[in-house]
Amino acid sequence: MSEWRKDPFTERWTIVAPERAGRPYEFGEGEETRCPFCEGMETLTPPEVFSIRRDGTMENQPGWFVRVFPNKYPALQRDIPFWSMEDGFHRAMSGFGVHEVIVETPHHAVDFSELPEEQIVRVLTAYRERLRHFAGERELRYGLIFKNQGVEAGASMSHAHSQFVATPVIPQAVCAELQSAKAFYSQRGKCLFCTLLEQERKKFARIVFESEHFVALVPYAARLPFEVVVFPVHHSATFLEETRLEDLAQTLRRVLQSVRECSGGSAFNFVLHSVPYHAQSEEHRSYHWHFEILPSFPRMAGFEWGSGFSINVLPPEEAASRLRLCLGFQEGE
Amino acid sequence: MSEWRKDPFTERWTIVAPERAGRPYEFGEGEETRCPFCEGMETLTPPEVFSIRRDGTMENQPGWFVRVFPNKYPALQRDIPFWSMEDGFHRAMSGFGVHEVIVETPHHAVDFSELPEEQIVRVLTAYRERLRHFAGERELRYGLIFKNQGVEAGASMSHAHSQFVATPVIPQAVCAELQSAKAFYSQRGKCLFCTLLEQERKKFARIVFESEHFVALVPYAARLPFEVVVFPVHHSATFLEETRLEDLAQTLRRVLQSVRECSGGSAFNFVLHSVPYHAQSEEHRSYHWHFEILPSFPRMAGFEWGSGFSINVLPPEEAASRLRLCLGFQEGE
Repeated sequence: MSEWRKDPFTERWTIVAPERAGRPYEFGEGEETRCPFCEGMETLTPPEVFSIRRDGTMENQPGWFVRVFPNKYPALQRDIPFWSMEDGFHRAMSGFGVHEVIVETPHHAVDFSELPEEQIVRVLTAYRERLRHFAGERELRYGLIFKNQGVEAGASMSHAHSQFVATPVIPQAVCAELQSAKAFYSQRGKCLFCTLLEQERKKFARIVFESEHFVALVPYAARLPFEVVVFPVHHSATFLEETRLEDLAQTLRRVLQSVRECSGGSAFNFVLHSVPYHAQSEEHRSYHWHFEILPSFPRMAGFEWGSGFSINVLPPEEAASRLRLCLGFQEGE
Repeated sequence: MSEWRKDPFTERWTIVAPERAGRPYEFGEGEETRCPFCEGMETLTPPEVFSIRRDGTMENQPGWFVRVFPNKYPALQRDIPFWSMEDGFHRAMSGFGVHEVIVETPHHAVDFSELPEEQIVRVLTAYRERLRHFAGERELRYGLIFKNQGVEAGASMSHAHSQFVATPVIPQAVCAELQSAKAFYSQRGKCLFCTLLEQERKKFARIVFESEHFVALVPYAARLPFEVVVFPVHHSATFLEETRLEDLAQTLRRVLQSVRECSGGSAFNFVLHSVPYHAQSEEHRSYHWHFEILPSFPRMAGFEWGSGFSINVLPPEEAASRLRLCLGFQEGE
């Protein structure tokens, strides 16, 4: 069974998850093995908890477009006895949480950005529905959607899939954003993200793409080349209520294709940051959901680990300019 | 010229360093090229700023044991015009700082732990002397020693070397430690690290090795398999005054060899965390220097990036037990 442990020196949380040591690693094997994520192989996975499928087809049978099931090698589990421990220095608790796999297509396709738009809409729908499903659980504080595409990005299976993890702790990465957002809101009475997006759109130098409802940009202090964040243009704290999924699917697809073309590699991670579960109204007013897209570059060397600083060899404005060129996107569009 | 940029949402600092895009990447090339870090190739590097060498030999000539020079592709530079910018959202400043290469041996050896002990003593001496050299500069707040060994660990050159970076900002990773240390000191009147080390040594489960003056252990919430931290047993905030370098060299060498054997790979990072430059006496009383050793495992996937949490498949107690076995180290030694 896994457990949560907090580092007494840095307050970082680690999930110690020995079960995951046994997970299969598909890449680099000589022989072709049967992919458990393909249509027709449903018995090789845990029973599904959600799917979008053709009318008249049965669960755990072929006929699905998107299929969600518990991770067979979970970092966290929901139905385990809860315990927690604190001894003045150390803090730990049972590996409580949720860990699911979201298979993005029944076919053995490997690239998210090559999926048809209507298929990406289904994937985004699955994200929203899984996030919603656990939103009422008192013990869960956060739901995180993320995707690893390619070996370099940490994927262990090539068949296109994302993951959903729900945790009893709000991730530090989100806490940092919330803290800045709340500080800004209490000073200025408006959303930091909205305010900055307005400025970025005026300045244009770091804008990558704009659709009717969404804007993609390279962050001012991007950690690596071609890092891109996609935000809704107008204020929206939570992805759970998002309905403009066609527009978002088109935006993500185009942006990911340009990132792939410019970065020269198809491996990337993305994560979806939405306001935490059970957020207060102040957090709903000050936070703004977004997708962070991180193409895979060699990146975590001793300096980054030892300092928390990043070194990015490509100026964000240059990255944005190349991505815009690739997308054929110009100011005033 | 590089620049420091602060992310307005997370307060993370990035160094935007286009110069580093041009640095050579030695691995994976078909043909043998001349290694600029080898003895006899001194003209291929910037002039040295420090060396430990045989009596009677001249600087920038053969005859050295350890040689330090400015990084040819620096992330940060000292002799550049200083500027800073703040517009209410964004903060930036010139890429001010120091970035040096510490070549650990004149021979084209690649593995730190295979260097003779007296050679490791010289390397540690170079660390201390470079850290000391900039300790008086008002604008520099921190000096960080780190090492990337192997492609997987982010090294771009195979010849054994470490790096020294001095920054005008205290790294977030160190700030987090300082904050915990100061909070503990103000409550309990003693050093958090000393107190925890005493407890860990009694408990023994996570201890890897002990020498006369140093102790190596797997942290309670280790982020990855075989992560090890080496501390001085007794209170010492700064590495700048460290004189027990023979004992430390032996400890590091043995620990790194066991990490290599247990992890099944020779790639790793280490970083040296010492109290910041210009620290107050409270920080000297509450902080405790240490080496963090991080063997290379595939590790930064979307979940880690999106959350700041780590997933470690090997329980720290199990890692410590395997490392002890490999070292032949037992309780009561």
